[in-house]
Amino acid sequence: MTAPAVKNDIKHRIAVARGAQKADLVLHGGSLVNVFSGEIYQTDVAVCGGKIAGLGSYKGHTVIDVSSKFILPGFIDSHVHIESSMLSPAEFARAVIPHGTTAVIADPHEIANVLGKTGIKYMLSASEGLPLDFYFMLPSCVPTTSLETSGARLTAADLLPFLKHQRVLGLAEVMNYPGVLHGEPDVLRKLKAFSHTVIDGHAPGLSDYDLSAYAGAGISSDHECTTANEAQRKVRMGMTVFIREGSVAKDLEALLPAVTRANAQFFTLATDDFQPGDVKRGSINQLIKKAIRLGLDPVVAVQMATINAARHFGLRQKGAVLPGYDADMVVIDDLKNFAVEKVFKAGKLVAEGGTCITDIRSRHHERTRGTVRMGPIEKKDIMMKAKTGLARVIELIPDRIETKCSIMPVTVQGGYIVSDIHNDILKLVVIERHKATGNRGVGLVKGLGLKAGAIAATVAHDSHNIITTGITDEDILTAVSRVQKIQGGLVVVNNRKVIAEIPLPVAGLMSDKRLDVVVNKLEEIDLAVKGLGVTCEHPFGILSFLALPVIPELKLTDRGLVDVKQFKFVDLFV
Amino acid sequence: MTAPAVKNDIKHRIAVARGAQKADLVLHGGSLVNVFSGEIYQTDVAVCGGKIAGLGSYKGHTVIDVSSKFILPGFIDSHVHIESSMLSPAEFARAVIPHGTTAVIADPHEIANVLGKTGIKYMLSASEGLPLDFYFMLPSCVPTTSLETSGARLTAADLLPFLKHQRVLGLAEVMNYPGVLHGEPDVLRKLKAFSHTVIDGHAPGLSDYDLSAYAGAGISSDHECTTANEAQRKVRMGMTVFIREGSVAKDLEALLPAVTRANAQFFTLATDDFQPGDVKRGSINQLIKKAIRLGLDPVVAVQMATINAARHFGLRQKGAVLPGYDADMVVIDDLKNFAVEKVFKAGKLVAEGGTCITDIRSRHHERTRGTVRMGPIEKKDIMMKAKTGLARVIELIPDRIETKCSIMPVTVQGGYIVSDIHNDILKLVVIERHKATGNRGVGLVKGLGLKAGAIAATVAHDSHNIITTGITDEDILTAVSRVQKIQGGLVVVNNRKVIAEIPLPVAGLMSDKRLDVVVNKLEEIDLAVKGLGVTCEHPFGILSFLALPVIPELKLTDRGLVDVKQFKFVDLFV
Repeated sequence: MTAPAVKNDIKHRIAVARGAQKADLVLHGGSLVNVFSGEIYQTDVAVCGGKIAGLGSYKGHTVIDVSSKFILPGFIDSHVHIESSMLSPAEFARAVIPHGTTAVIADPHEIANVLGKTGIKYMLSASEGLPLDFYFMLPSCVPTTSLETSGARLTAADLLPFLKHQRVLGLAEVMNYPGVLHGEPDVLRKLKAFSHTVIDGHAPGLSDYDLSAYAGAGISSDHECTTANEAQRKVRMGMTVFIREGSVAKDLEALLPAVTRANAQFFTLATDDFQPGDVKRGSINQLIKKAIRLGLDPVVAVQMATINAARHFGLRQKGAVLPGYDADMVVIDDLKNFAVEKVFKAGKLVAEGGTCITDIRSRHHERTRGTVRMGPIEKKDIMMKAKTGLARVIELIPDRIETKCSIMPVTVQGGYIVSDIHNDILKLVVIERHKATGNRGVGLVKGLGLKAGAIAATVAHDSHNIITTGITDEDILTAVSRVQKIQGGLVVVNNRKVIAEIPLPVAGLMSDKRLDVVVNKLEEIDLAVKGLGVTCEHPFGILSFLALPVIPELKLTDRGLVDVKQFKFVDLFV
Repeated sequence: MTAPAVKNDIKHRIAVARGAQKADLVLHGGSLVNVFSGEIYQTDVAVCGGKIAGLGSYKGHTVIDVSSKFILPGFIDSHVHIESSMLSPAEFARAVIPHGTTAVIADPHEIANVLGKTGIKYMLSASEGLPLDFYFMLPSCVPTTSLETSGARLTAADLLPFLKHQRVLGLAEVMNYPGVLHGEPDVLRKLKAFSHTVIDGHAPGLSDYDLSAYAGAGISSDHECTTANEAQRKVRMGMTVFIREGSVAKDLEALLPAVTRANAQFFTLATDDFQPGDVKRGSINQLIKKAIRLGLDPVVAVQMATINAARHFGLRQKGAVLPGYDADMVVIDDLKNFAVEKVFKAGKLVAEGGTCITDIRSRHHERTRGTVRMGPIEKKDIMMKAKTGLARVIELIPDRIETKCSIMPVTVQGGYIVSDIHNDILKLVVIERHKATGNRGVGLVKGLGLKAGAIAATVAHDSHNIITTGITDEDILTAVSRVQKIQGGLVVVNNRKVIAEIPLPVAGLMSDKRLDVVVNKLEEIDLAVKGLGVTCEHPFGILSFLALPVIPELKLTDRGLVDVKQFKFVDLFV
């Protein structure tokens, strides 16, 4: 009981609601989307002390005319990895607030794989006091597998203390669904430890008995549905389905047919992974707009993005423009065009006409820097002696993060394998960068189209070791050395010279610059790699999944080549 | 983290879900009402370790054929005063379980007015380990007013420690809505202290600005709506409406028109006050059945009684027959006849064919006994000197708990007022019984129809002092003396002899006997009072509201006659 000040808050709000005192702010003349009653109707919205005080007809110290506009609750992103935006939490906030997103449920899985508890602490600290509510789910799978070297290992005992933080809500996507199904002790310990909280899921394609088992283990959501049938199956098992529409995985159109009036309350919206360019273009607002365009009742679409998410996560004062709720509000032009004109956070106008107008400062966090820890690397370290003439090649599949394992003849020079421009079979190297173990995996990749130079990156799911590919060992080494020098980032090299780069000093994953700078740098990188012959879109995006040994079929980690289906190491040579 | 045993629970449940191990129990052949998907379809339900393990086709150590039957989640009563049943929690459980109720949200308001914290502790302790989940909301209004003497006074500081108990969910119905609207410090302190929990409301007829203020103070439900319009208004302000259908107040038919597909998730069902006879006949099952008969979609009716309530109160593992949820299940014959055939609590068959078949033992709690504390009382203590010939008489209104204040001529003998059989104006006395203050109020009541004898009771909302009426002072004193002797109960006296009674030794409110005994005793009492000329139904029920100074128009407390509209004491004589 924090006495007078806060007590007076309620007292003041009551007085404002009853018209005895003026509101801090009144939105006048707009149509409210009431997510409880399901109605849309004209009403004043009175705000005081950062909360909604009343609906009706009100006087305020400030009155904003929103006639002919629509008033909606601030949008909630049910599941997002901030790291995918390459922005710090503060910059991420600045970017998404103008799109109407006022709360996100974030899973700091990537930074936790690099920095462990320090990474989670950074995300909590760096998101403190911003005009965007960052709630966190605790990464359940650090490291993702035992076949790679991550920067940290987080047990249930490591995670539990974070639950004391009021913005930590539960356990993030339990990607290790085979671990759940096979009852792996470490996984079960986490499920048990978090059984009184929300536990989010990640179980692509799971059905029938396995889905019963997974849901029955206490996992109450899923954002990996790709068909309406799969979404229906999951809701039928008691899961809330987060409809995910990210930069790569786009499920909205496929899933909408699963939504009925009877089950709609168990659907929410999520971006999951939004690359910087997409963050610039929009956020949950884009998902709502698209859902409405595809025929979903606008009220239901707004409910998904607001009250449904709030109820799933137990956020009692979020997700509605109703008395007592936090005054997080979005004003849009209409329910079809869906242009976000004004955004209010706790009753304060924070964005207008697509621009953030509130003061947001990023803070420097020294402990997230200097995460590229590796010894010197020489040419001999990345040379591959040819044992046979046939090797297992990671073959890309267009527009997919899955790969094929193809057996192909290799090009040999002086007994060593070299990149083969003609057949587009390039050397791929993964170098451990967390503990300077000296671990490195060497393999081959087909399908990038690189004809000259090399590229290297510290963004490589989920352990985020250095991944690099190129034509000559010299260029590869130059790129790696540059990544090491700038302590993380994406680098493009040609003829031993860096021709484009973006430093990502925060854990090797995130920039400390503004969104525009990041997007510009990435465009420069895009141009540079295209100049080197790359034909596919987002080669760094593709590269970032080549070290992830939970996506079939063949992947390369710092410990070697992984046959994902068998979940074991295999030799490069056949 | 309680290691092996519990860890193995999840492990075992996963194995059962996947068919690798046999379930403890399988319900085979029934149709499941799936409260998430909104569908009704045939499936096996597999149970292990007290939880639902899977839906599909299963083998079990025990298989119960429920072909052609319907499987529903156990019903949740969103708001109930156990004390109204006159049963101990254990006996209440035995009574309602056969009707399919497996969880109740109880407000121990009555016993708290008698025994304060001891009363709440008793309810918590006496409901421990029963095959019915008793959740509690903490009484917000003890005492209800300052115009009466209750057994206790509970401040925010008294209530807060109870929140540590895992079955305590928040603050019970904030009846003192004028106190909210006028910002009374004591009320605001409670609202603030419980702002992070669920706060239930009670605000009959409130609308517009007052309703904004009340909802905005953090009060998120109401069970006092009497019209569809009122229910719509409240949902529109962000409140969940508990549709109440009690022994006296019956709102279901009036409120159903307010329910739409868009807002249905914000409605639940509650009995509030069920007298023993009604408890014998049914529980929430009767409300669902009636709602369906009145045309509500059966799935929506079941959702209201299960998942909607669970979500409102944040009970994550209640309210659905879905993997991971507690295996609280009801098997009914069909959705129209709605006969409850089997009830399972945590996977155990606890009732069949209307009978509780599990072992339930009431425990004796000494500290709830001996609550009638008063000094000797003599005839002179209840005699009223006639100051004038005109008095304010509490006039009953048939079938209402409100009364009229009527100015009437009184009958005087030897300078003192006496009961007037001819005009049915009887002496009414309220005697403080908690602290032996000697307080007593004396007044007149018209409309009971008593022609001889006297009645007395320790059930008198909300302070539960002794209330008594009768023809002669001798019979009144005999009745009071008997109530004192048996330490609480209802007593009927004629010619100085007790002709019917029911002892209510637990706080003077509840019996320690079985439901059947209680109902039989009440029937004997009914016969006895009818024999004394009483024409109205439930005279003890009527009597029990005559000391409640928040229901207009004229009431009598131990401190005197109260004009409820003016909220102050008035003189008996005009």
